[in-house]
Amino acid sequence: MTTRHLFLAASITGAGTSPLAARWPGTRPHRFAEWDHFREAAETARRGVLDAVFHSDFPAHHGDSSRAPGHVFDPLVVDAAIAGAVPDIGFILTASTSYNAPFNLARRTATLDHVSGGRTILNLVTNFAPAVAGNFGDTELLARPDRYRKADEFVAVLKKLWGSFQLGDPGTEGPLWSAETAQPIDHHGEFFDVTGPLNVPAGKQGHPVLAQAGASGPGLDFAARNAEVVYAALLTVDLARQFRDDLGERLKQHGRSLADVRLVPGVNVVLGIDDDDARRRWLAYSGFDSEEDMVAAFLHDQQGWGTGGVPVTITPDTVLEPEWFRPSSDQTTPVGFAQAVASVVASRPTTARELVRLYGNPGGHRLLVGSPETVAQGLADWWQQGVVDGFVVHFPVLPDDLERFVDQVVPILQTNGVTPASYAEAGATIRDRLGLPLPF
Amino acid sequence: MTTRHLFLAASITGAGTSPLAARWPGTRPHRFAEWDHFREAAETARRGVLDAVFHSDFPAHHGDSSRAPGHVFDPLVVDAAIAGAVPDIGFILTASTSYNAPFNLARRTATLDHVSGGRTILNLVTNFAPAVAGNFGDTELLARPDRYRKADEFVAVLKKLWGSFQLGDPGTEGPLWSAETAQPIDHHGEFFDVTGPLNVPAGKQGHPVLAQAGASGPGLDFAARNAEVVYAALLTVDLARQFRDDLGERLKQHGRSLADVRLVPGVNVVLGIDDDDARRRWLAYSGFDSEEDMVAAFLHDQQGWGTGGVPVTITPDTVLEPEWFRPSSDQTTPVGFAQAVASVVASRPTTARELVRLYGNPGGHRLLVGSPETVAQGLADWWQQGVVDGFVVHFPVLPDDLERFVDQVVPILQTNGVTPASYAEAGATIRDRLGLPLPF
Repeated sequence: MTTRHLFLAASITGAGTSPLAARWPGTRPHRFAEWDHFREAAETARRGVLDAVFHSDFPAHHGDSSRAPGHVFDPLVVDAAIAGAVPDIGFILTASTSYNAPFNLARRTATLDHVSGGRTILNLVTNFAPAVAGNFGDTELLARPDRYRKADEFVAVLKKLWGSFQLGDPGTEGPLWSAETAQPIDHHGEFFDVTGPLNVPAGKQGHPVLAQAGASGPGLDFAARNAEVVYAALLTVDLARQFRDDLGERLKQHGRSLADVRLVPGVNVVLGIDDDDARRRWLAYSGFDSEEDMVAAFLHDQQGWGTGGVPVTITPDTVLEPEWFRPSSDQTTPVGFAQAVASVVASRPTTARELVRLYGNPGGHRLLVGSPETVAQGLADWWQQGVVDGFVVHFPVLPDDLERFVDQVVPILQTNGVTPASYAEAGATIRDRLGLPLPF
Repeated sequence: MTTRHLFLAASITGAGTSPLAARWPGTRPHRFAEWDHFREAAETARRGVLDAVFHSDFPAHHGDSSRAPGHVFDPLVVDAAIAGAVPDIGFILTASTSYNAPFNLARRTATLDHVSGGRTILNLVTNFAPAVAGNFGDTELLARPDRYRKADEFVAVLKKLWGSFQLGDPGTEGPLWSAETAQPIDHHGEFFDVTGPLNVPAGKQGHPVLAQAGASGPGLDFAARNAEVVYAALLTVDLARQFRDDLGERLKQHGRSLADVRLVPGVNVVLGIDDDDARRRWLAYSGFDSEEDMVAAFLHDQQGWGTGGVPVTITPDTVLEPEWFRPSSDQTTPVGFAQAVASVVASRPTTARELVRLYGNPGGHRLLVGSPETVAQGLADWWQQGVVDGFVVHFPVLPDDLERFVDQVVPILQTNGVTPASYAEAGATIRDRLGLPLPF
């Protein structure tokens, strides 16, 4: 661990992860499409001296009008606007390697890195949903290995472009930059031909930090080759440690090591006055009257998921079989969440009830339900054990749960020296905050 | 004229139009790559209650290290950041129909229109320079008519997407929007296949205002079909009137009229204490010791331009022949500026000296050199005659010339009721400010 503090990013995607978020009392139902909602969330994150805000993305319409869509505004534009409005905060920006021209994305993220003062993390995703492909005239989706080969080349082009123009000191007369520091990249590959150089010079942190969240085999290899931050769904500390070790092995195969990468999994935080209150809140946010109902719904949703599928006959306290949860190699939904569940079931005898307590419903990431002390401890623990470098924190209802987190959990973390009390202490750039070196 | 005031946008592209802008005393040489430079310029524009800021764009590196590059940061990202930082100001955002996916651009500009409170104008350009094409793997540039056919389809897709999702009133329960107001567009054309609907709902002004600057025949037809704002290089009021009349004819052919369109040409303003001081400043900014030298350099630069080219034998006071300046139908530089010069020479006997006084060197747009009173009168005149609806004002050295314009010219315009004294008076959205109707 070379980072000086637990890195924390707040997900400000949509209206929150609860299926009931849109109409939660005390919130505006259409705030998922209001700029003020996102600006205010970023201001709240800054109040807590959080390192960054995070947006996931999905460039297609969310058809279900009963729930707040998660992905409305373009994250690049919203993050740029936040960078203009809110000092100090960093960004984890999600963008597609399938549906952006690398020159445009290199230029746009380099610009954001200037505007934000060197506080951009680019979270590259390979899109694969037919709903997305249809918006980009993409009639034949690439198979997963081809998508990642294309993504690898995309990253190679990004890095070449980001390093192709540097200004140096202007001096008092003569050329404004040296010709040697503005060189064409002349990239000609399988998927891309790009001449360069980029017209945006390198900024304070060289170039944006590269993050990757894929959990499939090709996705993990992509991360091992390219990522500086790895984002993942890891449900227990033992599985997180195992993931970290596996990642270390994969990194070695590419001449890198864990010292080059920061592990920042997601976590779903449900905060209550005390642990019981938090569990009641968890049920309420999930839309269930009881844990029995929640587990029953979880089992119902899992039927047919993965290669095996969950039999209809099991009870909440049946020990689950690993093969019921193995992700299919050709599934068109993200592998990460299925993999997270499968890992838990494979690692120890687990009932559906236990799984739901780790995962939630709707789930995805590690679930942390409790009082401010419980949540603070749950975040600090993994970091103090040297297993993770930080978390991307997801909230059921925005902005309320983020506000309560900042008011009630962050002060405990700060008092214990886990997170910084000021941005002067946190570091100026995202590379400073993560203890990552400049790329050149 | 249905607009209530002279619409004014300040170009904040790069470091200003002067070839000496980068190292002009009192400025920072590398400000063309500093976010604060653009934020401060937008704040200055707001101080003058200007309607918008304008960025031109060129997505390729500017090789010449002796001059400040005009096109560094991505305009979309900079404008979004300004929208976050500076209230009230509007945006004329330049983007390429050749190198953006229509779904991405529709979503990004719709997002900017939300963030900016309905104050986005999208200035669509068809790129054609080999330097740009090489950054996008585009090995075979489309011929101009094909580019505009593609641009037409691009606009059709944008409009369909922008109108494909509307939220309405959320009510107290039930669906968050009506299924009827979120419909696929199912566009399948020559260049684009896009399913939709857009995932960003329509904002305050429906969708961004569409602007177009092309001056070639296909470009003007494109404008007549699609544009709500036409931007052009018009060097004299007579030529502007003639352009307006011609545009009216073209609009009729497409079932539209001048009432549907606002004419907003560019103008290069060089402001002095008095008219003589302004002329000295004009020479200094252009890097010439005398008008003789400037005219000689202009003639040298024109040799070989257009179909005819200027003979090497002529003097500053030779009357110019129109055929020396006729733009070539296959030239790969923008037709607009060549057309502007050719129009002047064709309209009346004009010497090189007279032409340079109208056009400048480097030139492009109408040149307005003088005291604050002269400049204010020069802007107000064309508007009071009903020939134009506003101007995009270009400045030799940013931020200084913009600051002096706001401090010295704007108060005269405000006192005379030509431009508004407050944004309450100007109108909230760009459609309000231009007197343009909502699109749906």
